[in-house]
Amino acid sequence: MARKDGRTADALRPVTIERGWSAQAEGSALISVGSTKVLCTASVQPTVPRWMAGKGKGWVTAEYSMLPRSTNERMDRESVKGRIGGRTHEISRLVGRSLRAVVDMKALGELSIVVDCDVLQADGGTRCASITGAYVALAEAIEWAKAQKRIPASANPLIDSVSAISVGIVDGAPMLDLAYVEDSKAETDMNVVVTGRGLFVEVQGTAEGAPFDRTELGALLDLATGGCDELAAIQRSVLA
Amino acid sequence: MARKDGRTADALRPVTIERGWSAQAEGSALISVGSTKVLCTASVQPTVPRWMAGKGKGWVTAEYSMLPRSTNERMDRESVKGRIGGRTHEISRLVGRSLRAVVDMKALGELSIVVDCDVLQADGGTRCASITGAYVALAEAIEWAKAQKRIPASANPLIDSVSAISVGIVDGAPMLDLAYVEDSKAETDMNVVVTGRGLFVEVQGTAEGAPFDRTELGALLDLATGGCDELAAIQRSVLA
Amino acid sequence: MARKDGRTADALRPVTIERGWSAQAEGSALISVGSTKVLCTASVQPTVPRWMAGKGKGWVTAEYSMLPRSTNERMDRESVKGRIGGRTHEISRLVGRSLRAVVDMKALGELSIVVDCDVLQADGGTRCASITGAYVALAEAIEWAKAQKRIPASANPLIDSVSAISVGIVDGAPMLDLAYVEDSKAETDMNVVVTGRGLFVEVQGTAEGAPFDRTELGALLDLATGGCDELAAIQRSVLA
Amino acid sequence: MARKDGRTADALRPVTIERGWSAQAEGSALISVGSTKVLCTASVQPTVPRWMAGKGKGWVTAEYSMLPRSTNERMDRESVKGRIGGRTHEISRLVGRSLRAVVDMKALGELSIVVDCDVLQADGGTRCASITGAYVALAEAIEWAKAQKRIPASANPLIDSVSAISVGIVDGAPMLDLAYVEDSKAETDMNVVVTGRGLFVEVQGTAEGAPFDRTELGALLDLATGGCDELAAIQRSVLA
Amino acid sequence: MARKDGRTADALRPVTIERGWSAQAEGSALISVGSTKVLCTASVQPTVPRWMAGKGKGWVTAEYSMLPRSTNERMDRESVKGRIGGRTHEISRLVGRSLRAVVDMKALGELSIVVDCDVLQADGGTRCASITGAYVALAEAIEWAKAQKRIPASANPLIDSVSAISVGIVDGAPMLDLAYVEDSKAETDMNVVVTGRGLFVEVQGTAEGAPFDRTELGALLDLATGGCDELAAIQRSVLA
Amino acid sequence: MARKDGRTADALRPVTIERGWSAQAEGSALISVGSTKVLCTASVQPTVPRWMAGKGKGWVTAEYSMLPRSTNERMDRESVKGRIGGRTHEISRLVGRSLRAVVDMKALGELSIVVDCDVLQADGGTRCASITGAYVALAEAIEWAKAQKRIPASANPLIDSVSAISVGIVDGAPMLDLAYVEDSKAETDMNVVVTGRGLFVEVQGTAEGAPFDRTELGALLDLATGGCDELAAIQRSVLA
Repeated sequence: MARKDGRTADALRPVTIERGWSAQAEGSALISVGSTKVLCTASVQPTVPRWMAGKGKGWVTAEYSMLPRSTNERMDRESVKGRIGGRTHEISRLVGRSLRAVVDMKALGELSIVVDCDVLQADGGTRCASITGAYVALAEAIEWAKAQKRIPASANPLIDSVSAISVGIVDGAPMLDLAYVEDSKAETDMNVVVTGRGLFVEVQGTAEGAPFDRTELGALLDLATGGCDELAAIQRSVLA
Repeated sequence: MARKDGRTADALRPVTIERGWSAQAEGSALISVGSTKVLCTASVQPTVPRWMAGKGKGWVTAEYSMLPRSTNERMDRESVKGRIGGRTHEISRLVGRSLRAVVDMKALGELSIVVDCDVLQADGGTRCASITGAYVALAEAIEWAKAQKRIPASANPLIDSVSAISVGIVDGAPMLDLAYVEDSKAETDMNVVVTGRGLFVEVQGTAEGAPFDRTELGALLDLATGGCDELAAIQRSVLA
Repeated sequence: MARKDGRTADALRPVTIERGWSAQAEGSALISVGSTKVLCTASVQPTVPRWMAGKGKGWVTAEYSMLPRSTNERMDRESVKGRIGGRTHEISRLVGRSLRAVVDMKALGELSIVVDCDVLQADGGTRCASITGAYVALAEAIEWAKAQKRIPASANPLIDSVSAISVGIVDGAPMLDLAYVEDSKAETDMNVVVTGRGLFVEVQGTAEGAPFDRTELGALLDLATGGCDELAAIQRSVLA
Repeated sequence: MARKDGRTADALRPVTIERGWSAQAEGSALISVGSTKVLCTASVQPTVPRWMAGKGKGWVTAEYSMLPRSTNERMDRESVKGRIGGRTHEISRLVGRSLRAVVDMKALGELSIVVDCDVLQADGGTRCASITGAYVALAEAIEWAKAQKRIPASANPLIDSVSAISVGIVDGAPMLDLAYVEDSKAETDMNVVVTGRGLFVEVQGTAEGAPFDRTELGALLDLATGGCDELAAIQRSVLA
Repeated sequence: MARKDGRTADALRPVTIERGWSAQAEGSALISVGSTKVLCTASVQPTVPRWMAGKGKGWVTAEYSMLPRSTNERMDRESVKGRIGGRTHEISRLVGRSLRAVVDMKALGELSIVVDCDVLQADGGTRCASITGAYVALAEAIEWAKAQKRIPASANPLIDSVSAISVGIVDGAPMLDLAYVEDSKAETDMNVVVTGRGLFVEVQGTAEGAPFDRTELGALLDLATGGCDELAAIQRSVLA
Repeated sequence: MARKDGRTADALRPVTIERGWSAQAEGSALISVGSTKVLCTASVQPTVPRWMAGKGKGWVTAEYSMLPRSTNERMDRESVKGRIGGRTHEISRLVGRSLRAVVDMKALGELSIVVDCDVLQADGGTRCASITGAYVALAEAIEWAKAQKRIPASANPLIDSVSAISVGIVDGAPMLDLAYVEDSKAETDMNVVVTGRGLFVEVQGTAEGAPFDRTELGALLDLATGGCDELAAIQRSVLA
């Protein structure tokens, strides 16, 4: 069964990661997954949140946002509405948790890294692209902090890499890396966050249409694991 | 390995659901799962959100909130802070999606049902208890609407039941229905939403500590499926 | 002239106070006055507001809120609207002032007690029920603090008890403890807060319909004083 | 016992009301009560709130606010804080209720009058001065509306006048019209709203220090009734 | 070409400044420019913003606001809307910058002066009247601070005076000090802030209708410089 | 006197404008002025604000925002703070006014164009770069609307082009197009908005340090006019 852009069911869209995009941030990456483009910047800050202070441990957090015209219809800005929507909150928390899963906070030491993921253009999979790009920005910021001796040269705060991909059941068939038109008609939609070693950090599956069974879940996890393997390889080559 | 309250790894805490708790709401249920207590009320409203109007279809949504002293430490009220936190948003959206997965919106017709889940006392698993109790409140509200002829007697808006349970890996062992002390030390934490027929609506697994593999995921899903089977039976007997 | 529920003009609705309702809070009470149900929890906190620090005195404050479907029509949550309404503010302040009137802040010592009054079901008189229940939660929290030696055993922070009741002129006749249907057609509505010794803490009379004269005011105060005598007796027996 | 400014216990401070202060508003009054100065403007608007529309009745509402440096210490603006405080809400509601008590909404017809009370300088009694001045602004706006034929010439929307005064027990003695220094040490503080005919619209007594008994309450109401008689005479002469 | 009120193109409206209007503030001025009336109060505060602390320098800031019925149509209060509009922000910042331009922060020493400009009645030129009046309030507050020895007697924090006036091209002709009806039909509108010595602090010209050229700009600046000369003379005589 | 990057006092930094950057928006441009990069998108919407409806005229508005790490130090997001700051408001309004100055609203017809200017990287001059880039996005959106027949082929809504540049007095010398390090030490800072025909739309000069005189103002306007001539030529070639 053919996909609109001719991909097979288990194929990623073209992925590029331009590291060091920003002249200001300690770490940065502009990731493109098909037409989805996310600018990820990592900011190293000398303090940790108050509730963590004095424990000799660091902190990593993330904020996700979409530009108002990253989408097909212009959305009102959350700053203008005066409040952040549920979806934004949810994704910011997901990106932060995903990054923290591969960081040794003791090794990081008492500093914070805030990773901002701003979606410049959206065509499905923005939360997954954010995680994949954010990891590269984070890794670059940690390199910078070691070069600046903010982190001892001997410390290895990154215990693994992390990437994410969406999978879903579209017209009855499991598919990898859904574009917006696919995502909007998927019966089941799943975002899977996987480490470079192939372990799961997050599995978030939602039946948008019909509920799903164990067999379908298994097929989706297989696709996602394969996709994240490819993403991990791209991250490695970009960071090499 | 013994749990604090003597349960086996695959045992639920005592569950009671008191339906018709509220004299005001069209549907209501006070659910207790161990020390966790959630008051669920379902309000039938004659209109649907503007973007849905005129399609002959209904809408179901949910709002979750915790009383400030439902927890061990008092939390500030979100109304006083002037904004809803990310966790609240995330759970409200989860409860709404879970309910909508078992409702035939065409059969509901052009009316809305808002289910409020207010946590009176919290000891882990509040989002899952909310879903399980919300289903009973929703079912009661739909009965009411049929009795009131707001929904035709022949319509069957409920296509299945839905319940939810948390599972997790604690001290290396998969366990069902985590109490707060267990949840706070779990390496992996998963919330699973299952229909009465045993299909998945949501699978949300998060590695709080170490990432997990396919075997562990399978063990957790087995536990959750078993727990939701029991909850579905309790729901059926309460609604009979 | 008969009231809907058969009560005489000077009769309270059935009142029950279940103290120690909460497993989490230092003090708590679930009060029912007819169909009105309010959950009151008292939280002991080790600090006082900044403007009071270092004076060796304590502080007592309160927050009032209604669950969205405590009423006949569902109300929007104030947390969702992003601001607290005037009525909520007004009642929170009233409950706080009423409690402070019977507390010796020197004897309390430098700690705060926050009493949360959450209306689970509303049928008139929710602010008065909140005050009456809040006193029991407060007394329980002070007992706890003495048992925990946060307050010296010799200190007596409670210098009196306090309760409150609504009175009003309905169809020309003064009546005690108005239910919602009575309250909504009252010409004059008064909330009276009285100590266990029979002194006034607050008298808030409002002409909703026709203004009132000194004679009517006197009749209402007589009714309220009698009602609060009964409430004080119930409080004493609950706390005994 | 002498008061700081030499007044007797039952004397008002000097009161002046300058009607027609504003060149913009349909009605306005600048009231001075001692050093307290409040600018009251009444705005006639052609519509009523949505929940009142189509009933052929009008609506009167009020908003109270203090300039940031009306007080001895500068206060932060509520517009800058992004939320209105409890006291502001409470007083706005009180002023609105007081005005509505003397308006025949049927005779007003389907239009709204919003009265803004902005405290330019505060020295105690600002809420009472607001009510007394607001009545004059309201009366002027109604005159304007009749002249403009927005209200039929035959209609008499004002069924009485209304004014307000504070009373309190200071150093054990009942006193009329408390200045700020008196108010801040009062044991009991009461705001009384009285119509031109001498009936009560609001009686709000609060024990700031010691609770009070019926005898004290009576003495305070006597003082307040006398003070409002004088204020009603001033209002009449200003509006003549 | 005649102006509505008979003024010549280069004439100011009648200007009066009543200094010392407030009994509460350290400095104050009620300025009238035609029908525009602004109450300016200056509050001396013993601290500076945190980012300035410990530098031995002071700070001056301003807040501008309009009463809801200062204008022909009532505006909603920004405190009620819960946010400050763009225009308010812009003017507050402009007034603050204008005042800081004539203050030697070293000579002021480590204290803050906040100048509040509240528009009681608006008929065009409110931001310029605010600056002109704010300077008088500021000068009075500095006098007060010297008398109180908060500033050493030898220090001269005011290095110049400052005033402001609007100019514009109306019906093709450059005009000074636009009233509201003139301002609303101006093709170009300019606010000019000038020191007592005749130097520019701010020049803010905006083409509301047609863009303007260098010649027109020159004519407007000539008018503004003349107007501010007159305002500076009034300020000097008021402060003498 | 040499500038840090070797430019002469009257030289622009390298300017590039990439039109059609966005696959989603009707018009878009990514403008770089030195290291300053702003993404401008223009969204065509079928309606106008309510207060303009039914007049057969269109509307153009703009929103400006900076990504949190566009600057050297990370700034908190305005969406997270829940309110838009004064500077953001001020610039959004400036960009909107500048664009409206070159649009014939009658010729546009009853539709709105919203131009979003999101600063991806900031090194001084972001508001001016926003205006210059926004014009290109606007022109592209108008082309699109004509191609789509949303605007008649015969209509010419753009009556001129518009661009903007900053100028300032740095170390006593007038300079064109200030980079951040220059801007932060400028005594006077001016933003000038000029049409393609060389007329002024906005002149906003501010004395950050010492006030300025007419001669200095003239020198700055000469520089700005020259710079905007160059920018207009670049706009023309990009849109050709």
